[in-house]
Amino acid sequence: MSKASSTAADFPFKAITGGVTAPRGFRAGAIACGIKDPKKVRLDLALIVSDKKAKTTACFTTNRVKAAPVRVSAIHVKGGDARAIIANSGNANACTGPQGITDAKSMTRAVAEQLGLKMNQVLVNSTGIIGMPMPMDRIIPRSADLVAALSEKGSNKAAMAIMTSDTKAKSYAIEVKCHGHKFRVGGIAKGAGMICPNMATMLAFITTDATVDGSELKRATQAAVEQSFNRITIDGDTSTNDTVIVMSNGASGMPVIKSKAPCTEVFRAALRRVMVELAKMIVRDGERVTRFVEIRVKGARNYKDAKAVAEAVAKSTLVKCSWHGGDPNWGRVMHAVGYASARIREELVDIYFGGLCAAKGGLPTGIPVKELETVTTKPAFTVTVDLNLGEAEYNVYTTDLSKEYVDFNSSEYSAAVHSKRQTGLA
Amino acid sequence: MSKASSTAADFPFKAITGGVTAPRGFRAGAIACGIKDPKKVRLDLALIVSDKKAKTTACFTTNRVKAAPVRVSAIHVKGGDARAIIANSGNANACTGPQGITDAKSMTRAVAEQLGLKMNQVLVNSTGIIGMPMPMDRIIPRSADLVAALSEKGSNKAAMAIMTSDTKAKSYAIEVKCHGHKFRVGGIAKGAGMICPNMATMLAFITTDATVDGSELKRATQAAVEQSFNRITIDGDTSTNDTVIVMSNGASGMPVIKSKAPCTEVFRAALRRVMVELAKMIVRDGERVTRFVEIRVKGARNYKDAKAVAEAVAKSTLVKCSWHGGDPNWGRVMHAVGYASARIREELVDIYFGGLCAAKGGLPTGIPVKELETVTTKPAFTVTVDLNLGEAEYNVYTTDLSKEYVDFNSSEYSAAVHSKRQTGLA
Repeated sequence: MSKASSTAADFPFKAITGGVTAPRGFRAGAIACGIKDPKKVRLDLALIVSDKKAKTTACFTTNRVKAAPVRVSAIHVKGGDARAIIANSGNANACTGPQGITDAKSMTRAVAEQLGLKMNQVLVNSTGIIGMPMPMDRIIPRSADLVAALSEKGSNKAAMAIMTSDTKAKSYAIEVKCHGHKFRVGGIAKGAGMICPNMATMLAFITTDATVDGSELKRATQAAVEQSFNRITIDGDTSTNDTVIVMSNGASGMPVIKSKAPCTEVFRAALRRVMVELAKMIVRDGERVTRFVEIRVKGARNYKDAKAVAEAVAKSTLVKCSWHGGDPNWGRVMHAVGYASARIREELVDIYFGGLCAAKGGLPTGIPVKELETVTTKPAFTVTVDLNLGEAEYNVYTTDLSKEYVDFNSSEYSAAVHSKRQTGLA
Repeated sequence: MSKASSTAADFPFKAITGGVTAPRGFRAGAIACGIKDPKKVRLDLALIVSDKKAKTTACFTTNRVKAAPVRVSAIHVKGGDARAIIANSGNANACTGPQGITDAKSMTRAVAEQLGLKMNQVLVNSTGIIGMPMPMDRIIPRSADLVAALSEKGSNKAAMAIMTSDTKAKSYAIEVKCHGHKFRVGGIAKGAGMICPNMATMLAFITTDATVDGSELKRATQAAVEQSFNRITIDGDTSTNDTVIVMSNGASGMPVIKSKAPCTEVFRAALRRVMVELAKMIVRDGERVTRFVEIRVKGARNYKDAKAVAEAVAKSTLVKCSWHGGDPNWGRVMHAVGYASARIREELVDIYFGGLCAAKGGLPTGIPVKELETVTTKPAFTVTVDLNLGEAEYNVYTTDLSKEYVDFNSSEYSAAVHSKRQTGLA
């Protein structure tokens, strides 16, 4: 990570407002259809549109159980020229069988008709309850209203409409200078932390007015996702609906960015920067999270080992509990390092909380617990594990595990959803 | 599992009392040395001895960070004729470097001298706090007292002396008839659920007065461990100290059990039975556990896939939270099935709570939530996942995840251990 962020920090950019509508030539908007909430007071249907031709690519969940919208979007995105994204919250359209596919397609068709696009130029996303039919009678008749809601300042409404258990809308955008040109990259996202009662769903929609060649856009997106959204974990659960979509429309008028163009590296860094910021926002806003922790593993023999160790530490229930208590418990970190599928030598492992070395060569350094606690009782800190076996590094952004998380994911179910399932509301 | 237990249920046995001293020719005992507790009111040092020559085998943790007693016992057990097990609670002797090895060896030497054995006929186990030096001055001078405490009825004291966060001593024994002979198998164990503040440690010591050939004992033990202790998970964390030891002394006078002897299958079933019962006791007594859940996966293409699916479901934080709330949340089960490293087809997956089918072919069956809740609000129930792709099966015993678990593993640390680490008590 240190390498990744230092590169990302080295290019000239400034943070700007506007999310997905910060780049030129994009509009966004949202309406309240009553999917989330029968009183229609909460936005739950969002639309993002490029007014110009666009190149579009996407990454989807690796879960073998895939929601219908993921299946439909995965086919539509193959054309490479999608120009619209429709996304709803309140219903995940997952485990809904052939009817779910039909419904997801209908959503793309309705938007395509309104905008004069082909169906496969529209990508579709859903997040919310699993295993319930989509309330299509509340969605399709509102297509014209949804398109009418589009605006060059509509990003925040779209970000709000995709929220489920998120407590904050997540948005980030930057303006970048490169060889005399300016381009912008902006994005919105919604939370990880599997949502009551069933589904997580990490959704991120990124736009750019840079002019990017289709295959470079794909490469840059895969690389940026690997360094951002693939490095966050709250509860170790991978949703059926996770999707990242990147749309590039060239409205900046700059020369095409392709494999080895002058601005390629800067574009990649910019895209990574936006994704890393959105990914961190997702972690910070995880369900009932009280601490944000970055795990840095270094000195691994190879990338795979570094990743395995970082993920084992980040996913250990016991390690996460210790963070919740502000406990600088290097023993639990050590035991998670030990069961990771990686080559390690116990007598070489160093563990740091922030800048303080708690264990050196597998043994306690004797630094007082009270001193280590000055790091681990903070709302955000870094845990570094140096395996001292090689040069490979990896980092993960994660959280503590709180009583409130358990409470939220066990008891709230009855209040929030039970009634829905029984009344057939959603 | 159904196969395994039906075999185990088919052989003639009766449950008896006596734990590790139920088989003839074994004695056990325990004393309070002040390792756990400076007032010496709690038993914390146990000894189990075979009065006759014995064949002994063991399985140890796969964690690459191994406690000193694990390293020492792994060498001593190679001789195959160990006759004594010394085990302490209160200190894990893990992450203690070369001094830890010296201390573990000293414990075996002290016992060997008292009993007239060779050092490598003594195996050593520790469970408790990690990263603290062993209080050898409280252990070694008590060797004679420890040996004096041995008795043919001492199993329960030994079981109590290895407890850490366990709320109950765990003991099980059976008497088995086979071809006109009777033999006994008995065991004691201590809890999984990583113990405040640092270490779990699943310890199980099994004795039998059957006469078992050394290599058969090894094979039978590995098979039984795979079907019992390797199928339990409370928090998904593997300790640095996990150990299972099996000692056979032939005191029953029956013919030798070897690869294809008349009683081999019965002995294997008996050993498995004892281990499965002890494994279930460990799960039921997991830290702050409120539900005992068996995950049965069937219809997998192969054993590896069946295992991967069962473990993914058993380890999912969200699934475990739903059980805590008594929620028959098949959607969360489905999503965990989807991210397991296994071949699955969503449209073929059936999910059952007890005997009730919640999802068929990946879709909800429409059975009312209230009906499913009659299963999932019980203290113990089974979740069956049928992948409908093949014949392979696997089962795991697991638990819910409670707020109290998180509380116990985050805040109690300060009360229970913090003081120890600062005062250097342990």
